[in-house]
Amino acid sequence: MTMTGKQLFTTLGADGKLTLEISEESFPQPTGNQVLVKMEAAPINPSDLAILTSAADFENADYSTGKVVADMPEPFLSGQKNRHGQRLPAGNEGAGEVVATGDGDMAKALMGQRVACVPGNAFSQYAIADAMMCLPLGDHSSEVGASSFVNPMTALGFVETAKMEGHDAIVHLAAASNLGQMLNKIAIEDGLKVVNVVRKQEHVDLLKGIGAKYIVNSSDDDYMKQLRSAIKETGAYLGFDPIGGGQASDNVLKAMEQVAASQMDEYSRYGSTQDKKMYMYGRLDLSPTILTPSYGLQWGISGWLLTPFLQKAGMETVVKMRTRVQQNLTTTFASHYKAKVNLEEMLTKDAITDYRQMKTGEKYLVTPWS
Amino acid sequence: MTMTGKQLFTTLGADGKLTLEISEESFPQPTGNQVLVKMEAAPINPSDLAILTSAADFENADYSTGKVVADMPEPFLSGQKNRHGQRLPAGNEGAGEVVATGDGDMAKALMGQRVACVPGNAFSQYAIADAMMCLPLGDHSSEVGASSFVNPMTALGFVETAKMEGHDAIVHLAAASNLGQMLNKIAIEDGLKVVNVVRKQEHVDLLKGIGAKYIVNSSDDDYMKQLRSAIKETGAYLGFDPIGGGQASDNVLKAMEQVAASQMDEYSRYGSTQDKKMYMYGRLDLSPTILTPSYGLQWGISGWLLTPFLQKAGMETVVKMRTRVQQNLTTTFASHYKAKVNLEEMLTKDAITDYRQMKTGEKYLVTPWS
Repeated sequence: MTMTGKQLFTTLGADGKLTLEISEESFPQPTGNQVLVKMEAAPINPSDLAILTSAADFENADYSTGKVVADMPEPFLSGQKNRHGQRLPAGNEGAGEVVATGDGDMAKALMGQRVACVPGNAFSQYAIADAMMCLPLGDHSSEVGASSFVNPMTALGFVETAKMEGHDAIVHLAAASNLGQMLNKIAIEDGLKVVNVVRKQEHVDLLKGIGAKYIVNSSDDDYMKQLRSAIKETGAYLGFDPIGGGQASDNVLKAMEQVAASQMDEYSRYGSTQDKKMYMYGRLDLSPTILTPSYGLQWGISGWLLTPFLQKAGMETVVKMRTRVQQNLTTTFASHYKAKVNLEEMLTKDAITDYRQMKTGEKYLVTPWS
Repeated sequence: MTMTGKQLFTTLGADGKLTLEISEESFPQPTGNQVLVKMEAAPINPSDLAILTSAADFENADYSTGKVVADMPEPFLSGQKNRHGQRLPAGNEGAGEVVATGDGDMAKALMGQRVACVPGNAFSQYAIADAMMCLPLGDHSSEVGASSFVNPMTALGFVETAKMEGHDAIVHLAAASNLGQMLNKIAIEDGLKVVNVVRKQEHVDLLKGIGAKYIVNSSDDDYMKQLRSAIKETGAYLGFDPIGGGQASDNVLKAMEQVAASQMDEYSRYGSTQDKKMYMYGRLDLSPTILTPSYGLQWGISGWLLTPFLQKAGMETVVKMRTRVQQNLTTTFASHYKAKVNLEEMLTKDAITDYRQMKTGEKYLVTPWS
């Protein structure tokens, strides 16, 4: 039996044309511990936009039903040289019903169940997924379970990273996001202090509403002062930054250094001896990262990615994390969506223009069968 | 008995005036494992210039004998707020004769000997130093031993860092420096591959002359191509950067990623899975560091400082490193100087204008008694 259904593909040509299109595909019979999932819901995450929209010009693109062709500017065209000409699926995660399985025991046990999964082609009516990475949703709908991997595991991953590196306080940028809200809830449960940096008063209010204690507004005139005093109070010398571009991380390192230096007994030409570290886990801002020479040489910035982290953390920790997600799917790890679109609606100008902005709290959900 | 002698001080006022001056000081009797060293030679290292000249305007400064007052521009004035008003000594390292000691056995054993030391006020006729950090020079002159700490231990530290992190190849920027030359000699002995990045053909020739195998010239039109092919040949995914500002490190990370991505089986939206890391160990360029979004999120940049490294490496490794320096002081670890100046000459316009440029192979040596 071969299933056929609609699937989204993204192709960047060497000529600078980015093509997104829905096409009819056939899906193979799952083997071993694979399952075939009839995908019912999939969120559009910032991590999906890297191959979906990137920096292409969707304002002046060619739109037709189930297809859009947009120009990719430099340096983003050359920067993605390795994907030129490749027809790539998209959609990290989603949820749906298991309609066929391989012969493996783990796979067979999931037959007929509703699961969350991480197929890499979630923007599709069907997807092959690894049974080991599937989370049975029980009575929950696919909409409730669609975002149960990327954000929850990332938020839990930050807490684990902080623990592994001996910190009991962290700074989080763009902190009013779905992920940021989950992070605060987990952190409160685990006794980790979070300095939340947001850009708007309404985000300050939102985070206050869920019990966050340290919130600073980067749009305020005294942002740096607020930040320093929150760092001083919490001792947060580890941060997580989804923005990447500009001076978002630079400002945090600067504030960390100013607090640390003010607590030193004597001046050192090399800056304070306090180690300061930022993890960049996204690139909401594609402009270059700027690091000023204002915090000595006792600092670091590294990329943070979920998959390598999970590999480093090991199976036992990962199972513990997944169980915690499963048990708190409608509370701590609940996700909210601004709009639902089907595959064709996903490729309209209105939708793309809106979701590519990745505004806080305005996530889209793709429902391939609606 | 109290010794008196000339010593250099650097003071940055909150009003933006940087004052360098030579004054007559008295030096206390050493206690415990301290020794009093009559300083005969001290190099001006890039790490000294951070508090000596920083970004001050020495073109339009007020010069008088043994004194200069220069304006410090923003943001460097505010950036060094913690030293405002403090009268700081300068000079990391140097060599001279032990003329008095404390009661400690290590100290007493050095009486009358010529030693290299790390007093932090080496630009002085006398300095108190820690006997444990002194290196007896035997028959070598102070000029031969003056630079036996910072550069040799840093070069050896890079090799140890690479080993500790499982690398057998590294990239080194500004690689024709005294430090860079030492690094090549050690690396050849230890079987570590070094990709040397330099800016001039004469530096290519210089490094070839000492047996370096991988040398690329960043002034060549095909710099990135040269860099990629050297990284491909060596597998160097760890780098050391003394420049800091601009895109020096960015270019290396970009080349590392391009090589790694070209060796991947399939395209990944997150870039290659190859970890890429740069250590920034200096700030020859005080302009902001620019990091473009062109190498995914599997990378890191951290500061590298000698003192924290030595603490992490532990006493046994440090003793091994020091012994290696001592045994190869006139060969592998020999330093060369462009000019010798006494303390007053060090504060003349001609000298400052010249040594603050930190040109490759043009280091100054201070001889406080000449």
